[in-house]
Amino acid sequence: MTTTNKINKLVVIGVGLIGGSFALALKRAGLVNTVTGVGRSPANLDTALRLGVVDEICVDPASAVVDADMVLLAVPVGQMAGVMAAIAPALPEYAVVSDAGSTKQDVVALARQFLPQHLPRFVPAHPIAGAEKSGAEAALVDLYYNKNLVITALSENTADAIKRVRDLWLACGARIREMTPAEHDGVFAAVSHLPHLLAFALVDEIAAKPNAEQCFRFAASGFRDSTRIASSSPEMWRDISLANRNALLEELQQYQQQLTRLQMLLANADGEGMLAMFTRARDARNHWLTEILGSGKAE
Amino acid sequence: MTTTNKINKLVVIGVGLIGGSFALALKRAGLVNTVTGVGRSPANLDTALRLGVVDEICVDPASAVVDADMVLLAVPVGQMAGVMAAIAPALPEYAVVSDAGSTKQDVVALARQFLPQHLPRFVPAHPIAGAEKSGAEAALVDLYYNKNLVITALSENTADAIKRVRDLWLACGARIREMTPAEHDGVFAAVSHLPHLLAFALVDEIAAKPNAEQCFRFAASGFRDSTRIASSSPEMWRDISLANRNALLEELQQYQQQLTRLQMLLANADGEGMLAMFTRARDARNHWLTEILGSGKAE
Repeated sequence: MTTTNKINKLVVIGVGLIGGSFALALKRAGLVNTVTGVGRSPANLDTALRLGVVDEICVDPASAVVDADMVLLAVPVGQMAGVMAAIAPALPEYAVVSDAGSTKQDVVALARQFLPQHLPRFVPAHPIAGAEKSGAEAALVDLYYNKNLVITALSENTADAIKRVRDLWLACGARIREMTPAEHDGVFAAVSHLPHLLAFALVDEIAAKPNAEQCFRFAASGFRDSTRIASSSPEMWRDISLANRNALLEELQQYQQQLTRLQMLLANADGEGMLAMFTRARDARNHWLTEILGSGKAE
Repeated sequence: MTTTNKINKLVVIGVGLIGGSFALALKRAGLVNTVTGVGRSPANLDTALRLGVVDEICVDPASAVVDADMVLLAVPVGQMAGVMAAIAPALPEYAVVSDAGSTKQDVVALARQFLPQHLPRFVPAHPIAGAEKSGAEAALVDLYYNKNLVITALSENTADAIKRVRDLWLACGARIREMTPAEHDGVFAAVSHLPHLLAFALVDEIAAKPNAEQCFRFAASGFRDSTRIASSSPEMWRDISLANRNALLEELQQYQQQLTRLQMLLANADGEGMLAMFTRARDARNHWLTEILGSGKAE
């Protein structure tokens, strides 16, 4: 990367784990002169400033972006529409905008609605990284090292805007992947959103049983791990579920059909059929662990 | 416990993690003179002997139990019928027999079928402990320390036989719980068996997708934890599923109904309804973690 690509003013809207870690990594890489942090919580912005995650802070998205050359929208998907509407009138034409939303078709639809003039330089993306903690305090300079970053470029995007976004994430240490927004949403509905919903549904169902206390008293490590993601933020998962509703409904339906197949096997006492399903699952998971996770191709 | 309760000959049928750890704990407690290990794999029995898990080995269950005063059936539930049939003609009337099966109604039904003369001294039990590894090599003297041990006593059991089994597990460090076989099977169908089936079903469904490889490439830590139990033994879970078929079918049906409720919320874009379900689940799980798991009341 040449110095001509250096960002003069990066505006990060939403200075939490995701936005804060992006800022820290680019500052360390020497790719940005000034980072302005924008958010709704003055306390969190003060923390970001104190920790050096950002260089200046601002509570108004519009006035922050007025002279930005790069903007990252790192707010939860439920807040994306409001932020886009707020920056639309103030955004300079030359600024490149990207986001870090967990869903992509809805973010693209919002961009088409609120930033129609800016589509050549709005490059949607999704870093596949996370941690238990949140807020500016949780930001890590290495969060994206060796993690996947999915770019779901628009047909309207300029090659230069796409390269700009790629280069920044490469400088964070991420591995760049490309998909269409629909592919992205289908893949994450299957491997992330559906498992979260299944875990929430399971814990809620057990908690509603007349003998819930007795059940929980005997729940052990298998239950603990398989429901860990049911301790995630309810608000965030409501928003992601709504944002990726169509793909998730499709996944839920396919999973219901799969459970119905399993129910039939069990009702028929079909031991061979169950053994076949369980063996396929065990082998596929172990293959994934050793060949994909183990090789560092995923988080 | 007085020395009059000392076992002269303990026979452990199935010298794996469960049976081997029971033997080790009782040997350390000085509660047994001789442990005889019985199993189908000569190599595993040799290992058990070499590691001092057992004092002598035998491949024939009937000849092993002929002078036993305590017998533990620690084979997978799928092998329970064969073992009971084998020991029935040789078992001395005074011997106390217990088991470590993951399901209880089926074990009780088998005992009524194969050991009808022995019901006063057949005390069904289930230690709630496990580990990733299996075989005699995996046996741990402390496996049962602070773990739950469920006794599902029969109406035919003598008070003395129940006390005998309780005292042995107490000496292993376990916490004794009492339930009926039906209660036991319902609780474990909900908190253990159902989650295993859901995990197998999920991984198998994703592995069957046309874009399975792409999906697995983006599966991350949430997926890893929520499907960890899909790496469990397919044979063991086929057997447990068949053994606890009725309770598990009931749980599967209730879970399908719960998923249908969630599907409706999503189809109706009912954000409040989803937030309520996710919040109940998150709160119930966190309460479980801090109040039950954290206090050592469960594994």
